[in-house]
Amino acid sequence: MELTDQAAITSGSAFWTSTAAGGVPQITLTDGPHGVRMQSSDEDMLTGRPATCFPPAVTSGSTWDPQLLRRMGEALGDECRAMGVQVLLGPGINIKRTPLGGRNFEYFSEDPLISGVMATEWVLGLQSRGVGASLKHFAVNSQETNRMTISADVDERTLREIYLRAFQRVVTRSQPWTVMCSYNRINGVHASQNRWLLTDVLRGEWGFEGLVVSDWGAVVDRVAAVHAGLDLTMPGPDEAGDAALVTAVRDGSLDPADLTTSADRVAALVARSTLETTEGYDAAAHHALAREIAARGIVLLKNDGAVLPLTSGQSIAVLGEYARTPRYQGGGSSQITPTRLDDALTEITASTSAAVTFAQGYAADDNAVDEALLAEAVTAASNADVALVFVGSKQETEGADRDGLDLPAAHLALVERVAAANNRTIVILSNGAVVRTSPWDAAVPGLVEAWLLGQAGGGAVADVLFGRVNPSGRLTETIPLKLADHPSFFDFPGEAGHVRYGEGLHVGYRGFDAREQEVSYPFGFGLSYTSFEYGMPTASVTDKGVEITVDVTNTGDRDGREVVQVYMEVIGSRVRRAPRELKAFANVPIAAGATETVTLQIPREDLAYWDERLSRWIVEGGEYHFVVGASSRDLRGAVLATISEDEGARWPLTADSTIAEWFADPRGAELLTKAFADAASAGGITAQATDPGMLQLLGGLPLNRMGMFPGSPFSQEHVDALVEAANN
Amino acid sequence: MELTDQAAITSGSAFWTSTAAGGVPQITLTDGPHGVRMQSSDEDMLTGRPATCFPPAVTSGSTWDPQLLRRMGEALGDECRAMGVQVLLGPGINIKRTPLGGRNFEYFSEDPLISGVMATEWVLGLQSRGVGASLKHFAVNSQETNRMTISADVDERTLREIYLRAFQRVVTRSQPWTVMCSYNRINGVHASQNRWLLTDVLRGEWGFEGLVVSDWGAVVDRVAAVHAGLDLTMPGPDEAGDAALVTAVRDGSLDPADLTTSADRVAALVARSTLETTEGYDAAAHHALAREIAARGIVLLKNDGAVLPLTSGQSIAVLGEYARTPRYQGGGSSQITPTRLDDALTEITASTSAAVTFAQGYAADDNAVDEALLAEAVTAASNADVALVFVGSKQETEGADRDGLDLPAAHLALVERVAAANNRTIVILSNGAVVRTSPWDAAVPGLVEAWLLGQAGGGAVADVLFGRVNPSGRLTETIPLKLADHPSFFDFPGEAGHVRYGEGLHVGYRGFDAREQEVSYPFGFGLSYTSFEYGMPTASVTDKGVEITVDVTNTGDRDGREVVQVYMEVIGSRVRRAPRELKAFANVPIAAGATETVTLQIPREDLAYWDERLSRWIVEGGEYHFVVGASSRDLRGAVLATISEDEGARWPLTADSTIAEWFADPRGAELLTKAFADAASAGGITAQATDPGMLQLLGGLPLNRMGMFPGSPFSQEHVDALVEAANN
Repeated sequence: MELTDQAAITSGSAFWTSTAAGGVPQITLTDGPHGVRMQSSDEDMLTGRPATCFPPAVTSGSTWDPQLLRRMGEALGDECRAMGVQVLLGPGINIKRTPLGGRNFEYFSEDPLISGVMATEWVLGLQSRGVGASLKHFAVNSQETNRMTISADVDERTLREIYLRAFQRVVTRSQPWTVMCSYNRINGVHASQNRWLLTDVLRGEWGFEGLVVSDWGAVVDRVAAVHAGLDLTMPGPDEAGDAALVTAVRDGSLDPADLTTSADRVAALVARSTLETTEGYDAAAHHALAREIAARGIVLLKNDGAVLPLTSGQSIAVLGEYARTPRYQGGGSSQITPTRLDDALTEITASTSAAVTFAQGYAADDNAVDEALLAEAVTAASNADVALVFVGSKQETEGADRDGLDLPAAHLALVERVAAANNRTIVILSNGAVVRTSPWDAAVPGLVEAWLLGQAGGGAVADVLFGRVNPSGRLTETIPLKLADHPSFFDFPGEAGHVRYGEGLHVGYRGFDAREQEVSYPFGFGLSYTSFEYGMPTASVTDKGVEITVDVTNTGDRDGREVVQVYMEVIGSRVRRAPRELKAFANVPIAAGATETVTLQIPREDLAYWDERLSRWIVEGGEYHFVVGASSRDLRGAVLATISEDEGARWPLTADSTIAEWFADPRGAELLTKAFADAASAGGITAQATDPGMLQLLGGLPLNRMGMFPGSPFSQEHVDALVEAANN
Repeated sequence: MELTDQAAITSGSAFWTSTAAGGVPQITLTDGPHGVRMQSSDEDMLTGRPATCFPPAVTSGSTWDPQLLRRMGEALGDECRAMGVQVLLGPGINIKRTPLGGRNFEYFSEDPLISGVMATEWVLGLQSRGVGASLKHFAVNSQETNRMTISADVDERTLREIYLRAFQRVVTRSQPWTVMCSYNRINGVHASQNRWLLTDVLRGEWGFEGLVVSDWGAVVDRVAAVHAGLDLTMPGPDEAGDAALVTAVRDGSLDPADLTTSADRVAALVARSTLETTEGYDAAAHHALAREIAARGIVLLKNDGAVLPLTSGQSIAVLGEYARTPRYQGGGSSQITPTRLDDALTEITASTSAAVTFAQGYAADDNAVDEALLAEAVTAASNADVALVFVGSKQETEGADRDGLDLPAAHLALVERVAAANNRTIVILSNGAVVRTSPWDAAVPGLVEAWLLGQAGGGAVADVLFGRVNPSGRLTETIPLKLADHPSFFDFPGEAGHVRYGEGLHVGYRGFDAREQEVSYPFGFGLSYTSFEYGMPTASVTDKGVEITVDVTNTGDRDGREVVQVYMEVIGSRVRRAPRELKAFANVPIAAGATETVTLQIPREDLAYWDERLSRWIVEGGEYHFVVGASSRDLRGAVLATISEDEGARWPLTADSTIAEWFADPRGAELLTKAFADAASAGGITAQATDPGMLQLLGGLPLNRMGMFPGSPFSQEHVDALVEAANN
C-alpha cells in the first residue's frame, strides 16, 4: 500500500467512519455500549436513531449473571447489523474508583473480577453476530474531571491488580476486535501515546490481536501515537496528522514498520467486517430482554417486615415524578433514543386491581422543596395501604463528575414526609451511581435500588415490586455512610494536572474492609424474597487452580436466585493485601426448599499478585482462606487451602538488601549469622552486633553500607561473596 | 588548601569527630537532642557518659511553650561545653506521619507549625551557648522501616507544606550551624545526593548559611553527595571516599568548586566552634528544669468528677511497675545515661502523709497477664481511696517502627481489673507515641498522658497529680480510635522500596477533620484543673499578616495556663485545603478569675499554599476564617478576614487549558464566549456548543484539541490569538 494511503486509513474520514483508501473500504463505528447510538443527522450530534435502550452497565452488572450480558451482546449485534454498524463502542469497564465518577453508570464495578467477567460475555455475544467490540477506555479513565489532560498517577501493582486487570481478562478471553485508548494520561504519559500500555502490555503480555482505536479526540500527536501502537485515530478527517505521519516516515523519525503495522491492522479490521446489513430486528423481543435484565439488576436493599412483595388488594400511592417520567439512562455518548419507553406508574397500575393514586411529589427539573407537591403526596400516602416513593439522583453524565452523593433536597423531603405518613413506605431509587442512603433509610421499611433501568425499566420495577421476579441483584459497589468515608476521598479529582491514586489497592470494598469501616450496604449485598442457607465449603487444589464447592439451600417458600461469592484471604502474605478479594461467583436459581451444590472455579492465575520487585505475577506459597459469602460482609463459611509457590518467587538478596532483609530470608539468615559470628572477635561495631538494640539499629542498613562504619569486617569482597552464596 | 586535605576534612576521622587536616582542627559532634550522649568508651557504642536526660520532644512539644525549649537548649549548650562537644545532633523535627513511627518520641508533632516553632527556640537556646545545632533529619524521614533504602514518594505541594515546612521555619529563623540529611530517598533520590533539596531549596530558597552533615552512614556516593551540597560525611575515616573525591576533581567529573565550597564550610564550622570546655554544669538546676518541662508536657486527657488533683488525706494505691521503674526515654541514638533518675512511686509517697501502697501489677519485661500480680493490685486498689495505674507502651526506638497501638495485654488487664475495683481509678500513661485508649478509657474517670518524661518525670507526675502544677499540656498529635482510622493507614511502611504518601496534605488532624472522623482525643486537646472562657476574636489585617486578638478568662478558682490556638479556614479556595490548619498559638498564664487579652501574629507568608502550577508560594485573595479554639475540635469563636491576593497568582491560560478552565477565568470566559458566538454560524460541533449537554462533554477538552473535530473553527492561529489575548 502507498505510504499516503497507509497514513490515510489510520485516521477517520468523518465522525463515525474510517477512511476508504488503498483498496480498503470504510466501516462505521458508533457509540454503545447499552444501545446502538447512530447519529440521526450531521447537524444533531446528540440525538440518535431509535434503538433498544438496554440497562446501562451499573444495572446489568448488578445482575451478577454473565449469561444476561451474553444475550445483551447478541441483541446489540443484531441491531448493529440492522443499522450497518461494524464496530460498537463498548463495553466500558473502567473501575469505579469514586462514587462521584460521572460515567460510573456506564461501568460495571469497583472490582475488576466482576467487571471482567461481565464484559467478556458482552463481547462474546456481540462478536458472535459478526460485529466488533471496542473495549474501553484503556486505561485508568475513572473520572471525567479534566479527563483529557489529567494524569492518573498509580503505582504499578495497583495498575496491574485493579485498573488493568479487567482489561486483561476480557482481552485474553474474548479477543475484542478493537480496544479504545482513553483520554487521560497514566503516570504522565497520554494513553494514546503510551507504548508500554498499548504494545508491551496489551499485545506483548496479553496477546491482543486486534486494533487499537483512539477515544474520539484523544490523540495529541499522531506520530507518537502510531509509534506507541495506536492504530486508528478518530474522528477525522485529519489531513495534517496524515501528512505528519508521511513526513515522519520519510525523515526517519518514525519506523515505517510502525505505520505499516497499524495500516495492516485497520485493513484486517475492515476485512473481518464482512457481514451485510440485515433487515431490522425483533424490537419486541429486545424490549423484553431489556426488561428481563433490568428486573434482574434491581437490588433489594431493605425489606423490613416483608413489606415487599406487594400483596393483591393493597391500595397503593405512587409518589414522585420519576414514577411517571423515568430516569432510565445517563447523559453523553451512550444516550439512546429508545424504541419505546415504559414507566413505573403505568406498569404498577396494570399490575393490580386495587386503587392506585399518583402524586408528583417534586418537579423533575427543580431540586427545591415544593410544599404543595409534598402535601399532595402526603395525603395520597396517608390514604393508601402502601406508599411507593420514586426518587433518585438528578443526572449522571459523561464529561462531568458529580459533586456529592446526596439526593436532591426535594426528594429527601418527600421520603421523610411520606415515611412519617405511612409505615409501609418503600423507596425506589433511580440513579446511575451510588447515592447516600444514610440516615434516611432508617425511617423506611423498604428500599429498592433500581439504578437506571433502560427503556423497559417501568415493567421491571413492577415485576420486582409485585414479586413476579424475585430480586437477585447484588451491589457491585459499596454504598458508604458518607462520601468522606470513601477510600478515594483524599485525592479526587486531583489538582494541577495530576490525580494521585493514593489509596493504592484499597479501592472500594478493599479499602472499607481494610479500615474496618461501617458502610450503609456492602459490596455484594442484596436481599431476596426467600432465604438461603449455606453448607460448609470444601476446596480442591490442583495445578490449574482451586475449585470451591458448597451446598446452598433455599429455605423459604419461594423460588429464587442466590449469588454465591468466594473471597480470598491470604494468611501471612509477604506483601500488603486487601483483607478479602472477590475471586469467583455463581448465580444460581434454587427452587423453594431445594438444595443446589454450587461449584466455583478459581484459575491459579487469579491467585497471583503483581510483584514489584520481580516485575511479574506471583502466586505465593502458603495457606489461603477461601471464604464463601452472600456478600462481602455476610460470610457464611471458610475453607483453608494450601497453595504451592510459583517457581522463581523468591526475592533475590543483593548487596543493597538490608540486614533485616538478609535475616528474613532463610539462606541469607544462615549466611549472615555465620558472618557476624566470625566477625565478632574483630571488635568495633560488630562486637555488639548480637545485642538486640544494636540489631534493631542495624536492621535497616544495606549490607554494602556496613563498610562505612569503623572496624566493619564487611569488605566489598566479603559482601560480594555473601551475595553470591545467597543466590546460588 | 590542598585537594587531598579538602577531601579529608569532608569526612570524619572517627565515629564522633571530624578530621583535622589542612590546618583545620577537629571538632566533636555527638548525639542529642534531649541530652548529650557522649559515648563512654570506644567499645561500648550504646552507653553514654552521664548527662541530664531532659524529656524527649514528644513531651517538650506537648508544653506548647517555646520558652521552655529555649531554656532546654541553653542548658544542653552548657552541658556540651562541659563535655567538649561543639555540635549537638538535634533537634529532630520530622513530621509524625503515622503513630507507628519508631522515632516519634524524638519528634514534636504531626503539624509543621508547632514543630518549627518549638525547634527554633531549642536551636536559639543551644547556639546562644556557642554550641552548634544539627537540624535533622532532612527530610521526609518519617519512618524507621527500611529507612536507609526506602523512597518516600510525596507530591511537591505536600513536601513543601508539610514535610519541609518546619525545616524552612527553623532555618530561616535560627540559622542552625548544621543541617543533617536523612537516610531515606525522596521521590527516588537519596537525601544525601539530592541537590534540589540540599542546595536549591535549603540554600537557594531559604538562605541557609551553615553546613550539611550526613546522618551517620547515609552517604552512598561521596562524589554525588558533595555535588549535591552535602559537606561533611559521617562517620569516618573514609579513605576510599576521600580518594574518590580527589579522583573526581582530577578527572573533571566533579567541579572543584563543589569540593572547595564544602571544605570551606567545614572550616567555617570549625572556626566558629571557638569556645573552650567549661568546668561542669549545674546538674541540680538542670534536673529541676527537666522536671519543670516534664510537668508542663503532661496532658490531662480525662478528669471526670474532678477526680484530680488528689486531695490530702486520700489513701492511694500506686499500681504498675512503671511507677517504680520508669519508662522515661526511648531507644537508639538519643538514649541518655541520666545524672539521676526519679520514680513516681517515691515522689508520690513523699507528697502525702496518707497511706500509699504499691503493687507491681505486671512484670516490666513480660506482656503476658500474671494473675497473681493482678490480684495483688486489685486488693490494693480495693483498699485505697484512689487507684493510680501506671501503664504504657513497651518500647519505642530508633531503627524499628511499632507494629500496633495497643497497650500490652498485661497492662490492659490491669486497667480493667483496677477500674472495676475502684471508681476513682486514674491511669497514667508512659509512652513515646500514641497508644490506643479506646474503648478502655470509658471505664476510668482519670487519664493522664505522661509520655516519656526524662529523668525527672517521677516528680513531674506527682506535681500534676497533687495539683502543684496545674496541667496545661496539649496534644501535638491526634489519638485515633484505632490504627485503621489513621490517614496514613493505606500505605505504611511501604513495599518494594517505596512508601507512597497517598494521603497527601491530609496528615494527622488535617486528615481526620477532612474525613469527619471521630477520634479519641483531638489535636490540641488537654484539660486543666481550671476552666477558660473565650471572648469574640477580632482580626487586624496588614500587608505583614494577620493579628488575632481574643480575651480569655480563667473562670475557675485556680491559676492556670491556657494554650490559645488559631486555625485557618480558607473559604472557596481554588485548591484542595485541609478543613483547618494551625496558624498560631499562645501559651498564656491566667490567674484565677482574671482575663487576659491574647494577641497572636500570623505572618502573611504563613497564609500561603504551595502552588504546583506556578511553582511558588501563593496567598490567595478572598475570605478567610480565623477560628480560635482550645483544641482543633473545641472551637470557641471565629473571625472573618479579607485577604488580598498575591501578585502573579493568576493561573495563565494556555492552548492546552481546557474549555472549562477558560470559562473559569473571567478574561478567558469573555474571550471564549465571544469566540463561540462568532463560530456558531459555522455549523459543525460548535453549532451545538451552547447546549448545556454539549458544554459538559466539551468542558474537559483542551482548547487546542477543538481542531480535531470536523467543522471546528478553532484553527491553530485562532487558538494562539486567544491565548495571547487572555494573558495580556
